[in-house]
Amino acid sequence: MRIVMGNCLVGKIAIIGVGLIGGSLALALKQAQAVENVTGWDIDLDNLNLAVQLGVIDIAARGIESAVSDADVVMLAVPVGSMLMVAQQVLVYMKPGAILTDTGSVKQTVVAEVEPLAEVCGVSFVAGHPISGTERSGAGSAFAELYQHKRCILTPTGNTNMQALELVGRLWKIAGSEVVHMDVVKHDRILAAISHLPHMIAYSLVNSVSSYDRYPENILDYSAGGFRDFTRIASSDPIMWRDIALKNRESLLEMISQFEQFLSELKQDIDSADGERLYEFFHRSKISRDAILAKTAKDN
Amino acid sequence: MRIVMGNCLVGKIAIIGVGLIGGSLALALKQAQAVENVTGWDIDLDNLNLAVQLGVIDIAARGIESAVSDADVVMLAVPVGSMLMVAQQVLVYMKPGAILTDTGSVKQTVVAEVEPLAEVCGVSFVAGHPISGTERSGAGSAFAELYQHKRCILTPTGNTNMQALELVGRLWKIAGSEVVHMDVVKHDRILAAISHLPHMIAYSLVNSVSSYDRYPENILDYSAGGFRDFTRIASSDPIMWRDIALKNRESLLEMISQFEQFLSELKQDIDSADGERLYEFFHRSKISRDAILAKTAKDN
Repeated sequence: MRIVMGNCLVGKIAIIGVGLIGGSLALALKQAQAVENVTGWDIDLDNLNLAVQLGVIDIAARGIESAVSDADVVMLAVPVGSMLMVAQQVLVYMKPGAILTDTGSVKQTVVAEVEPLAEVCGVSFVAGHPISGTERSGAGSAFAELYQHKRCILTPTGNTNMQALELVGRLWKIAGSEVVHMDVVKHDRILAAISHLPHMIAYSLVNSVSSYDRYPENILDYSAGGFRDFTRIASSDPIMWRDIALKNRESLLEMISQFEQFLSELKQDIDSADGERLYEFFHRSKISRDAILAKTAKDN
Repeated sequence: MRIVMGNCLVGKIAIIGVGLIGGSLALALKQAQAVENVTGWDIDLDNLNLAVQLGVIDIAARGIESAVSDADVVMLAVPVGSMLMVAQQVLVYMKPGAILTDTGSVKQTVVAEVEPLAEVCGVSFVAGHPISGTERSGAGSAFAELYQHKRCILTPTGNTNMQALELVGRLWKIAGSEVVHMDVVKHDRILAAISHLPHMIAYSLVNSVSSYDRYPENILDYSAGGFRDFTRIASSDPIMWRDIALKNRESLLEMISQFEQFLSELKQDIDSADGERLYEFFHRSKISRDAILAKTAKDN
């Protein structure tokens, strides 16, 4: 691995998938002058061209080979369902000693699939997941500040190269993130709870309310700001979330079942008009929710 | 009823419960100089004193009798569970010909209970519900702009006095609301879907995630902005939501059951790893959700 002297941490980084996630990292690293050159590639050529026009990346590669063959670091920022296939494609061309890393929201499957392949190619694989994003997608939605004051979780295994882990961590820190190392199974369980479950609930809520057919009009038309805010994440990319649901199936099913039990308990208390238990249920939730806010305020 | 000449629409309005809802209406009406005098009363004397100190109301009444006995309009802005009791207390002292109105989030029960009592007292009752609010409460959180560009639903019955209905509608319009008339049963069903159900879900989600015990730490500590936004409404007042859950029991149970069916369908698709059906489920939801946004953008 060629570590560049001077201000730059890395010579060439190749970002595969220049959407919100890859594009925002590209912008942050360019702004910090942490890399000499940010080359991008995207399966959607219109999006790739937009990324160059907007200055999100320096160069649009003609193909995967030219994107990655002389890159010191290759960052995969594609939907988790495409991660293995894209990793296979880039590993064919990557130079030995280079670093492959990713941004996928689910880590067990990608680590199990990509790590052994990378080892065969003499490439160091570091699995990562920046805990940030918006419901928008594409290079046009990228912005350099996306990762500021957010966590980025790296999930090293016993086989992870420590130098590579350190370098990837430094890139995310430069982008503004707090870097946390976590066991890969724990990562997938925690993300199932705090991110994947809420998305499943938001999608189900919107479908459930829009299917209400007692009245001829669409009752979503009556929704006010509260409903709009609550369902913002139901505007997220369906392909991305199909892939996450499939890849984090087991942890997600566990969390949905746990949520169903709590909702069912609440439903029984409403059914039996048990005001005391209802108050206790809402009060307990408010205490927990307010504690998140207090902690966030303290962190910032 | 004494309709005041000049700029003012009403001589004296008494607002019972000077929290976020009652206080914000008081501020909006005072700012528009729509009423000669806004008198407030609150069961929480600290909150009542705060309301005067902050200029939310002109006068803090010493008790319910002095608050309402010479009022042209009495606005009840108390939790729905206290509405009947407070209505009984004020009706004893209200002058014949005056108007009693409310802001409760559930309308069937209050109409059934209060309308006949008001008629006996020679008072016109108009049931109303401003579709707005935040998760905060108390006079300190009141602000004059709360109702701007929001809907206020009035639910007249066959017995409603048309002049009183018109006057209450004008007060809400002065506060910035779009006034809509709606059948009282329809109101409760629609609110169960777009407001009460999301609150039940948010409370259940927070309780479910904070109870996850596979790891010693509280996994809510890992939650990022998405989870914080999604669960904002779980910080709402537990007493208010206990009352709403009890008062809109039937419609709410129907909506929870419908939501449970959709979540269960989604869970089965995850369990059977049916990517096509998952994509379709998420895509359909995104289309509906984006349509709300498009409509809101057009409305504003």
